Amino acid sequence: MQKRYSIGVDFGTLSGRAVLYDLSTGNSLASAVMDYPHGVMDRELPDGTPLPADFALQHPKDYLEVLSTILPKVIASAGVDPREVIGLGLDFTTCTLIPVTADGTPLCFLPEYQNNPHAFPKLWKHHSPEEDAQRATRIAKERGEAFLSRYGGKISTEWLLPKMMETLRLAPEIYHTAAYFVEAMDFMVWQLTGKLTRSASAMGYKALWHKREGFPSKDFLTQLDPGLANLYDEKLAGPILAPGSLAGTITPEAAERFGLAPGTAVAVGMPDAHVAASALRVTSPGTLFCLLGTSGCHMLLGDREISVPGICGFVEDGIMPGFYGYEAGQSCFGDLFGWFVEHQVPAAYQAEADENHISIHALLTQKAAALSPGESGLLALDWWNGNRSILVDFDLSGMILGMTLLTRPEEIYRALLESACFGTRMIVENYKTHGIPVNEIIACGGIAKKNPLLMQILSDVLGLPVKLAASDQATAQGSAICGAVAAGSKNGGFDTLEEGALAMGRLSDLVYQPKAENTAIYNQLYKEYATLHDYFGRGENNVMKRLRALSREGWRP
Amino acid sequence: MQKRYSIGVDFGTLSGRAVLYDLSTGNSLASAVMDYPHGVMDRELPDGTPLPADFALQHPKDYLEVLSTILPKVIASAGVDPREVIGLGLDFTTCTLIPVTADGTPLCFLPEYQNNPHAFPKLWKHHSPEEDAQRATRIAKERGEAFLSRYGGKISTEWLLPKMMETLRLAPEIYHTAAYFVEAMDFMVWQLTGKLTRSASAMGYKALWHKREGFPSKDFLTQLDPGLANLYDEKLAGPILAPGSLAGTITPEAAERFGLAPGTAVAVGMPDAHVAASALRVTSPGTLFCLLGTSGCHMLLGDREISVPGICGFVEDGIMPGFYGYEAGQSCFGDLFGWFVEHQVPAAYQAEADENHISIHALLTQKAAALSPGESGLLALDWWNGNRSILVDFDLSGMILGMTLLTRPEEIYRALLESACFGTRMIVENYKTHGIPVNEIIACGGIAKKNPLLMQILSDVLGLPVKLAASDQATAQGSAICGAVAAGSKNGGFDTLEEGALAMGRLSDLVYQPKAENTAIYNQLYKEYATLHDYFGRGENNVMKRLRALSREGWRP
Repeated sequence: MQKRYSIGVDFGTLSGRAVLYDLSTGNSLASAVMDYPHGVMDRELPDGTPLPADFALQHPKDYLEVLSTILPKVIASAGVDPREVIGLGLDFTTCTLIPVTADGTPLCFLPEYQNNPHAFPKLWKHHSPEEDAQRATRIAKERGEAFLSRYGGKISTEWLLPKMMETLRLAPEIYHTAAYFVEAMDFMVWQLTGKLTRSASAMGYKALWHKREGFPSKDFLTQLDPGLANLYDEKLAGPILAPGSLAGTITPEAAERFGLAPGTAVAVGMPDAHVAASALRVTSPGTLFCLLGTSGCHMLLGDREISVPGICGFVEDGIMPGFYGYEAGQSCFGDLFGWFVEHQVPAAYQAEADENHISIHALLTQKAAALSPGESGLLALDWWNGNRSILVDFDLSGMILGMTLLTRPEEIYRALLESACFGTRMIVENYKTHGIPVNEIIACGGIAKKNPLLMQILSDVLGLPVKLAASDQATAQGSAICGAVAAGSKNGGFDTLEEGALAMGRLSDLVYQPKAENTAIYNQLYKEYATLHDYFGRGENNVMKRLRALSREGWRP
Repeated sequence: MQKRYSIGVDFGTLSGRAVLYDLSTGNSLASAVMDYPHGVMDRELPDGTPLPADFALQHPKDYLEVLSTILPKVIASAGVDPREVIGLGLDFTTCTLIPVTADGTPLCFLPEYQNNPHAFPKLWKHHSPEEDAQRATRIAKERGEAFLSRYGGKISTEWLLPKMMETLRLAPEIYHTAAYFVEAMDFMVWQLTGKLTRSASAMGYKALWHKREGFPSKDFLTQLDPGLANLYDEKLAGPILAPGSLAGTITPEAAERFGLAPGTAVAVGMPDAHVAASALRVTSPGTLFCLLGTSGCHMLLGDREISVPGICGFVEDGIMPGFYGYEAGQSCFGDLFGWFVEHQVPAAYQAEADENHISIHALLTQKAAALSPGESGLLALDWWNGNRSILVDFDLSGMILGMTLLTRPEEIYRALLESACFGTRMIVENYKTHGIPVNEIIACGGIAKKNPLLMQILSDVLGLPVKLAASDQATAQGSAICGAVAAGSKNGGFDTLEEGALAMGRLSDLVYQPKAENTAIYNQLYKEYATLHDYFGRGENNVMKRLRALSREGWRP
């Protein structure tokens, strides 16, 4: 039987990783990773041009250099013939947006723009267009734009429209010179295939696009700024393809540059969260899959279009063709525990961890695991980075109560773990309240593997089994499945994402089952959490917003 | 002119200190301090008998040993003739209660009781009779006992009645064998003078005694336990004397034992907070004097009897004869900052403090002082040890909100300082609302001197000048003034506490003045504090109590 392989490439915030899979077994044979040489540029451009506050840019040369390094490496390391690689898929952070010329050259490659920050890719977490986002939301609301209801009622700073408004406002020459603005994922697919395609998933979740209704109206754009009127028609032109679609095949030039065979199928790009579905065997409604890293992303397939308040969005074909892909998120997950470890753990604990040759997280987890639910008397609201779902409010902040003079650091650590799980439960309850069933949880991402205590608490808090991805690289694996689907069964791949998911997706044998006695206590604690969630988060006492305003700008009575 | 001296002895929780004053100048000439050899016994008796949970006992031998060490030492160190010492006053923690025989011998000195915990002094913070306190409060309420209104509606675990109920309940042989139960201050005065006297201040604040109404009724006692019926008549018999009264003079035996001259005047004992008034020149209404240590005690003279809700109590002649002495308290003051430093400051800060050869408190204060009011966006409720005033609720707990991923330890530290000051303001506003004016603050106690940032914040939060005691030993100085008053002008002392206060009391030249721009911001933050204070503290959301119950006993829905 002929060997058939597929490669998945996962472009994260700081590095790119390629993993090569054997399609006959579903196993990974090799992987290669490389950091972006310029990382995230938030202080200055490579030529020393200083950047304004809250800018977060990247360099497209890094993407190309990383890909041309890791692809040959992963092929060599696996010892396979490039001609046996039938497909390639890639995923990327999003919305990470690059202005390019008509032939796909980033404007920042042109000498005349290399000192212009707006010519560089604005990374997903480029937070400077906050006011643009607020203005776009306000105007959309005033106009009664129906699309808002698909996005929890709010246009996020991290999405496409505010980034474009900022570029037009501050660097109109870039806006007008660019033939297109492309997601980094689509830029890379273009480099490989010579063709411009657009990811339906990225367009849906980040650019307000709808499969049947298309983009928001030109009237809306014109009201934002007459200069934006051509945004969707021209600047975002290009075919929009569903997940697993064939974007094109490797050009001879790309084959030479990246070490692949010409003609290899390339799937349309995918956002780095949503692409994981097939690797987690999520092919039908009822399973919430969670990407748990610094923040949390909670996705679900639905067979109906339901406006669920407070979610990030739902997109037809956004995760798996034939389904509505629902996405909600927690803006602070692992970051919360990271903050605690950095700022709140005393020297004596550090010494104890050092003495036992374990990390401080491991020490705190050991100590926290010895506590029973409710034992500490603590309760926290996990809003250290605002609340993405279901309140969609980034002016909220963290809270903890119940401290006594006997309260120890591990008790607070456990209360923070619990609060993150209560935040997940709030999302789950919100889905269920609106008619979207959630029967089980699949967790992937660094924290899912690293913190068994957190996974048990999550199961106990939700009263649901929590399964884990078998692989640490569920996103790269999902991309590889997309590549095999793009190749199709005629080339030894698959005809649908479902088929690929069932053939290659893997879950760990380890399943966390809820402990009834813990769930009983957490049900009570969750009620307390929900009461405080509404009190501080739904306007009964806007103290967090007033404190934030005071902190930012001085008091406005 | 003949030399005249007075000695003040301050018995704290862990040590006793004697300070000798020159009455012609008001200056201290020498001081001597000694720790109690047995400290606080909370695990076992000296013979190894283990102690139940929440017990806090002391050994009366320690009191005697300390006094017989420090009195000769302070006299020798000052180089004065004992006959020139015209008076001695002493103050003590309270309610610290000792069962004694008819001749004043502590029962724990008798071989047959030396392994009985109830034969030893129960220290003020002996917290085990919590249920007795709750039961006494409940029965007093049911009976409509009028005395409750003088004590904020609640009988505290730390007072006399619950300690007595516990002794009768668990060790009836001790209750019945003891001829008397005496406050440690009255025990020591008895040792010096050979006479049993009772401090009106201690009896008033800790034993529910009232100058005109006397103790609660025998009916009330009988309902608590028929065995208690003789409590006030017999077990607490003895003349009750107002502050500054002559309790007696030094007996020849005591003179030899403690190195004083026979016939020296000894003042009636005083509680270690209230005694400070004269050292702080507080001789009229309008001045709140605050003893700021691990907890905070806020006292005030009034010329009328007003039932102020939520205070610890008011006692006629309790602080200064001729006035009603009002007392309120914060159960957590310095302890809060101590908790933070112990449990929440990262290793990097410890290293920075070590490098700069300063304490971690000093480092945090430096960093916190660089912040503006409101800059951190944080707000805390200072209830880590419950709330003594004005909520009188020890099931409340601490809260902090406003945290983001950028929140640093010094911001939390400052928020805790601010919350303690908001707690003080709540007490001040409560006094004012009920017709008791507060025009200025005088602070004494360790923290007042050690933390200028806290004093400035206190002034800014209250919008009032904050003055400081000149001496670090305001309590010992107050006791020395009591000793000089007990001696009277005919012996070279004073005839009244007011006279002594004006002659010897001293304030520091340093006065913290409120900064208007800070007060304006703190007025707004205090409103937020007050809203949360009422929300969590007055029954709108009893989450803290439910969490406490869960933590203690498991959940009761």
